[in-house]
Amino acid sequence: MVTLGIIGAGRIGKVHITGITSRVKNAVIKTVADPFMNEETAAWVKANGIKNVTKDHTEILRDPQIDAVLICSSTDTHSAISLAAIRAGKHIFCEKPIDHDVAKIKEVINALKGTGLKYQVGFNRRFDHNFEAVRNAVVSGQIGEPEIIKITSRDPEPPSPAYVKVSGGMFLDMTIHDFDMARFLAGCDAEEVYAYAANLVDPAIGEAGDIDTAIISMKMKNGALCVIDNCRRASYGYDQRAEVFGSKGMVAVENDSTSNAKIATADGVKYEKPLFFFLERYMDAYGKEVAAFVDAIEKNTDTPLGVEDGLKPVLMGLAAQKSLREHRPVRIDEIDV
Amino acid sequence: MVTLGIIGAGRIGKVHITGITSRVKNAVIKTVADPFMNEETAAWVKANGIKNVTKDHTEILRDPQIDAVLICSSTDTHSAISLAAIRAGKHIFCEKPIDHDVAKIKEVINALKGTGLKYQVGFNRRFDHNFEAVRNAVVSGQIGEPEIIKITSRDPEPPSPAYVKVSGGMFLDMTIHDFDMARFLAGCDAEEVYAYAANLVDPAIGEAGDIDTAIISMKMKNGALCVIDNCRRASYGYDQRAEVFGSKGMVAVENDSTSNAKIATADGVKYEKPLFFFLERYMDAYGKEVAAFVDAIEKNTDTPLGVEDGLKPVLMGLAAQKSLREHRPVRIDEIDV
Amino acid sequence: MVTLGIIGAGRIGKVHITGITSRVKNAVIKTVADPFMNEETAAWVKANGIKNVTKDHTEILRDPQIDAVLICSSTDTHSAISLAAIRAGKHIFCEKPIDHDVAKIKEVINALKGTGLKYQVGFNRRFDHNFEAVRNAVVSGQIGEPEIIKITSRDPEPPSPAYVKVSGGMFLDMTIHDFDMARFLAGCDAEEVYAYAANLVDPAIGEAGDIDTAIISMKMKNGALCVIDNCRRASYGYDQRAEVFGSKGMVAVENDSTSNAKIATADGVKYEKPLFFFLERYMDAYGKEVAAFVDAIEKNTDTPLGVEDGLKPVLMGLAAQKSLREHRPVRIDEIDV
Amino acid sequence: MVTLGIIGAGRIGKVHITGITSRVKNAVIKTVADPFMNEETAAWVKANGIKNVTKDHTEILRDPQIDAVLICSSTDTHSAISLAAIRAGKHIFCEKPIDHDVAKIKEVINALKGTGLKYQVGFNRRFDHNFEAVRNAVVSGQIGEPEIIKITSRDPEPPSPAYVKVSGGMFLDMTIHDFDMARFLAGCDAEEVYAYAANLVDPAIGEAGDIDTAIISMKMKNGALCVIDNCRRASYGYDQRAEVFGSKGMVAVENDSTSNAKIATADGVKYEKPLFFFLERYMDAYGKEVAAFVDAIEKNTDTPLGVEDGLKPVLMGLAAQKSLREHRPVRIDEIDV
Repeated sequence: MVTLGIIGAGRIGKVHITGITSRVKNAVIKTVADPFMNEETAAWVKANGIKNVTKDHTEILRDPQIDAVLICSSTDTHSAISLAAIRAGKHIFCEKPIDHDVAKIKEVINALKGTGLKYQVGFNRRFDHNFEAVRNAVVSGQIGEPEIIKITSRDPEPPSPAYVKVSGGMFLDMTIHDFDMARFLAGCDAEEVYAYAANLVDPAIGEAGDIDTAIISMKMKNGALCVIDNCRRASYGYDQRAEVFGSKGMVAVENDSTSNAKIATADGVKYEKPLFFFLERYMDAYGKEVAAFVDAIEKNTDTPLGVEDGLKPVLMGLAAQKSLREHRPVRIDEIDV
Repeated sequence: MVTLGIIGAGRIGKVHITGITSRVKNAVIKTVADPFMNEETAAWVKANGIKNVTKDHTEILRDPQIDAVLICSSTDTHSAISLAAIRAGKHIFCEKPIDHDVAKIKEVINALKGTGLKYQVGFNRRFDHNFEAVRNAVVSGQIGEPEIIKITSRDPEPPSPAYVKVSGGMFLDMTIHDFDMARFLAGCDAEEVYAYAANLVDPAIGEAGDIDTAIISMKMKNGALCVIDNCRRASYGYDQRAEVFGSKGMVAVENDSTSNAKIATADGVKYEKPLFFFLERYMDAYGKEVAAFVDAIEKNTDTPLGVEDGLKPVLMGLAAQKSLREHRPVRIDEIDV
Repeated sequence: MVTLGIIGAGRIGKVHITGITSRVKNAVIKTVADPFMNEETAAWVKANGIKNVTKDHTEILRDPQIDAVLICSSTDTHSAISLAAIRAGKHIFCEKPIDHDVAKIKEVINALKGTGLKYQVGFNRRFDHNFEAVRNAVVSGQIGEPEIIKITSRDPEPPSPAYVKVSGGMFLDMTIHDFDMARFLAGCDAEEVYAYAANLVDPAIGEAGDIDTAIISMKMKNGALCVIDNCRRASYGYDQRAEVFGSKGMVAVENDSTSNAKIATADGVKYEKPLFFFLERYMDAYGKEVAAFVDAIEKNTDTPLGVEDGLKPVLMGLAAQKSLREHRPVRIDEIDV
Repeated sequence: MVTLGIIGAGRIGKVHITGITSRVKNAVIKTVADPFMNEETAAWVKANGIKNVTKDHTEILRDPQIDAVLICSSTDTHSAISLAAIRAGKHIFCEKPIDHDVAKIKEVINALKGTGLKYQVGFNRRFDHNFEAVRNAVVSGQIGEPEIIKITSRDPEPPSPAYVKVSGGMFLDMTIHDFDMARFLAGCDAEEVYAYAANLVDPAIGEAGDIDTAIISMKMKNGALCVIDNCRRASYGYDQRAEVFGSKGMVAVENDSTSNAKIATADGVKYEKPLFFFLERYMDAYGKEVAAFVDAIEKNTDTPLGVEDGLKPVLMGLAAQKSLREHRPVRIDEIDV
């Protein structure tokens, strides 16, 4: 059994608590820390069978019974808490992104060296049953060498302009998952990025200095071409698809729905919309990623998504930002100097 | 080139004229006969490049240039015109059913013997691209030995009560196509029929002595079990599907639509309804069945659907009627004595 | 919190233990009883966080802390243990079927009268997300009055001949779920049954006195016609579909798969097979049915599937057996006299 | 009736002859001209009911009975024959592209001015039932304002290196159809193009100076973003799909197949591959585009695709070439100066 501490009890912290209690057999959560811990949250935590709550996450870091921490706090604290946890000798599962600042991520990378601690970044979509099937089709050779990779990722509803301002921008906040997916499906890093983007959904997002709709094309290091299309608002729900076309064939996955019921009437043939948002779509994946982290600790193997996997999508996002700003293709090595 | 005469210029006659002129390269229609031939119909016929129209179908039978006739007249004339055409030495394509009276069909069978004339019955659905694919999957052995056969056949709109009265009843008028399909897909004859049926769509159909909704189950001679479900009214259009389940697998076909467009909105994900009715769904099949008939004449081979294939579904329909009346399973050999 | 005792730790008992521990928040299992309890099973039970194991199920019945029991023992013990549990004042969740003997089920019905105890029968498929969607489409009026109900239910692999002998026969062992589904989707009881069946899969099943392939048609009390098709062996996996056709439209559901990946190659376009068997397909439904049972206890409401719902499908199965034996349609009231 | 002359009896010329004879009621082909007319082709033409064949296309231009010509000759002759046909007072249907040289297309545009002659360019895909459905969903407002347009276009087999050399390059030879589709679906022109491309399929194509795989992204004048993905070789057949995402929803279309048969076996669930290539997929569209051209002549209305519609995709193709060469986004107005 691996004993966990959860740092951050906001939305994603609660997702992980639910995921772990219902889906991870060989882990137990001992303590949940959140600077804004209140009675309601504490009650919710205890109803999930967890004993300790605290406002001070260093309590977790100081607890010798706790083997590993999940960093679910706000993005701007991820790298600092990672460093503190490394010093405290805890294995770390950190929500994405580690940081928006490449230098800070590299500090974490350096601090980890030689410690033998496990580090995993929370790119949960790699654990989705559909995307796993795409990856398996690629790895098994069924579709040959990947040549074209297409990723569609559209949110059901735009975030608030207030959130947009602190989000790091769509490329680092939302597309970052798709950058990771591109690496996952291509099996290699990106070489160059070109981004078209626009503010079509909500003028307030534009006023907050961000875009909400984009087509990002990339050249991958293995020669494959890749395109991501994003939008912050899809009226029909969370649209998360991928396709890999290769020398021998193609694999593609569609969205999931609550049921596959087909209703045919005089108006047409109707199916349900996709599952509403990431909680609905990826609940199993959230459980599976932590299960993989816990297994890596128990078996002393590599985590499936190391700290370098946390760096790479940030580089891609920064390249996309630069491409948009400078209206030209940008090589990843222009960012990662 | 085979020279054809068309007897009957009602709906199905026009379907065949259109099918032949656009899809049958090696046939030419010389004459179209219809007792109710009027100026409008004559004009339509001539606009299709056909020279002669007449009210008297015996003109066609007497014309030595005409090799073959298509009998598209009302059902009650099919067997008599078949006999006359045999006497006149014409090859015959006869719309289904040859007759509702088994004795009259057998007269046609006997008259044909030794003449060397081709006879084909108009079970057009065997030539539909989807049902052909089902049959091919069975014949190729891909699904093993057929064990369960399921046929769905639902019309978009009920016929008028006036039509119902002269139709011979739903089993002989509508289900007869499905009885043929059962034989086609099973590759053998039926042994026994049990019919549940009800008058659920239009009380006037019940008053006309018929039913409009049915589930007909059957035991086929090769041991496969078969079920047909029928309704005279499907709000979403013409529903024509089939499935064969066998020892090694299953093959199933769905309906066709005008396009496969998927429209996803806040209301759900919507597809088009099936093609509206038999003219839309089976136009290609109508062309292909006559092409097969013409080829059989030119190459002196058997037609794909002989006169016996016209008899068998009538026997099944009569057995279904008897089953419904007597509320018990009825063997085909109780009808065909 | 509701405290549960599990009687029977075979396959279905384990399914419920897994379902409850991962999916039912407001219940805790105190004790698991099984006459064949061994070290391995005891270890498995304890790894699921359950404290007590015993060979004697009466320990559970005598334990005043236990509110309710799940009867997961062999079918022939269901009614006797139900009676004992009623006497002990326990709420009861009983796996299907309660008994093959109508008189014994009626004994349970009578014993329950006036006790205020909750009784639920384990027809788990009503809690499957797809079948729930079908039922919702019917109840909401979207498809109008039900007229034709079609249920496909095929197992991936036939049971052993040894099991067949004690199973009560396919109609009471396997089709019983479909009889319940027919009642669920029609929203009423059956009036009459006609069964075609055959031994096509494994001669040993025939030698054991049973059939393995069937088409069972029925007339429901609301006038709808219904057909169930069954087979004990589907090479492509567990095939569980349903369709309801009504005056305004149709609703249909397909199988689920591990992923919806589509792989297109020179060989064709390929999807995954359906989920292998009931454990894979219905794991969520098993959790949901017990959650509903626990909720009914906590809120003192009716269970969604009462003891009468356990009787009705048995009557339908016995009618199907009689229909097959006597080769005629059999009314339910011939059985339930 | 409109009388047509066909100039060019190669593959596409034959496609149009077949399309017109089977699908265009109000047109008759009088003469077919081809400099390489041989006995075999002449026989094929005559078997289609056409009287005259010639090696000299000016015979058609001089024939006062011929109202309109279809230019199906090699690309390098399109603009010159267009000019000659305009001088001869013939309406013109010209296969795409009119020319690779913008100046020559503009010559045709100028020559047409004031003549009242109809001119249509052969972008047949606009007449495909699926793409029409996408366009209709956009025009009807069902999906709101278009924001993201995605076009997939992959050929089953690469052309010969010899063909590649004279083709004008993939962007002008193959992608040109997709550039037209982008304009059709967006309802406006492109503003800027950025192209990623590679030679992944056949080294000989690279040696011939061309690429075979590409992702082309564009900004459209209405603000929508668009991406086209191309490959010269898709192992599973001709892959032609499109999707438009808008403020209220999304519309997408898939490929067509010979049948929709689904075959489920122990190996998985299999469907047919897409229709093999453009002849199979677009035969109806070829008939419909000429029918539209003939209707425009008969009713003296605009053709659905005028000469300007022939120019625009060429500009886009040239911009894509320049983008690839100069490794930067290229505005259309850099080309069309």
